[in-house]
Amino acid sequence: MAKRVTGPEIERLIQLLARIPGLGPRSARRAALYLIKKKEPLLAPLADALAVARDKVGVCSRCGNVDTADPCAVCADPQRDQSVIIVVEDVADLWALERAGAMNVAYHVLGGTLSPLDGIGPDDLNIAGLVERVAAGGIVEIVLAVNATVEGQTTAHYITDRLAGMDVKITRLAHGVPVGGELDYLDEGTLSAALRARTNF
Amino acid sequence: MAKRVTGPEIERLIQLLARIPGLGPRSARRAALYLIKKKEPLLAPLADALAVARDKVGVCSRCGNVDTADPCAVCADPQRDQSVIIVVEDVADLWALERAGAMNVAYHVLGGTLSPLDGIGPDDLNIAGLVERVAAGGIVEIVLAVNATVEGQTTAHYITDRLAGMDVKITRLAHGVPVGGELDYLDEGTLSAALRARTNF
Repeated sequence: MAKRVTGPEIERLIQLLARIPGLGPRSARRAALYLIKKKEPLLAPLADALAVARDKVGVCSRCGNVDTADPCAVCADPQRDQSVIIVVEDVADLWALERAGAMNVAYHVLGGTLSPLDGIGPDDLNIAGLVERVAAGGIVEIVLAVNATVEGQTTAHYITDRLAGMDVKITRLAHGVPVGGELDYLDEGTLSAALRARTNF
Repeated sequence: MAKRVTGPEIERLIQLLARIPGLGPRSARRAALYLIKKKEPLLAPLADALAVARDKVGVCSRCGNVDTADPCAVCADPQRDQSVIIVVEDVADLWALERAGAMNVAYHVLGGTLSPLDGIGPDDLNIAGLVERVAAGGIVEIVLAVNATVEGQTTAHYITDRLAGMDVKITRLAHGVPVGGELDYLDEGTLSAALRARTNF
């Protein structure tokens, strides 16, 4: 702004909001004004929620999920089959799979994928932690639920190599037509995978 | 989420973030995870900035701008020509006009427009405050910078009526072709306004 029309505190709030993914500089201004207008119903509770998250939320030392407890709610859940571990790239993937609710098992968050171009090697991911969990025993299956990208598949192959010789079954997500998907819009790779893995009707 | 995979504190943070304009439920989840990952560089400063805004930011009792001081930085600025008042609907409009930087004058924020359908009448807007400021003397011009919508124009006419008989010049923003605008994409109303208000080249 050319001249000072409002306090530096508001400018700082706008700058910080603009760094949240999904909010640009313009929508950050709009968001800041909205928050200031809704001070009691929204701004104050959000300030408190962020302070609580700052003080209490951490990364689970076992699986890499984020939670206020360590081990996290997933690792500490006695109802879950802790002998099966679903390996995901990111906490967001863990949450997405949990929303699907198909398996009631444990997880392991890698924190990314192998990407030599970005300088991300095995030591930058939580792969050693996974090997340790398997080596400790009691694990019967590892489900590699990484993204169907080159980096994701490279990472899956690397993990398979690292777990070679250990007594554990390694599986991956099925390829196929997304539920609700139209064939016309799908790529050839997905279509041939869906044909090869066809099932009885 | 079907089962508890993370603390209720994180769920609450996601729900509050989802109420910010520009963030839906899905992007609020993404934003919450991003904030938790960037705890020191972003989450903690944002929590502080919101707490400061909650404690310090208020509405200027004179013009309706938001600031940490009352009267606000605009009203208190001795460099500004306080005898000219630009009337805007919203604080966001004040900020937008200040970014343009064309006039170094005072403002008055109405807080909306007259809208009988939404039950917004003159008493719901800060019109009485504007009349008071003009009645107090020393104001030579009122620039009606309301939106070029039906509600905005109705509000402008109402304010003109309320200020009738007072010794003050009332002006409005010029209509015309937006800078960088292509004629082909403009409506007939804008084009005829631009033609009628044509100037020497």
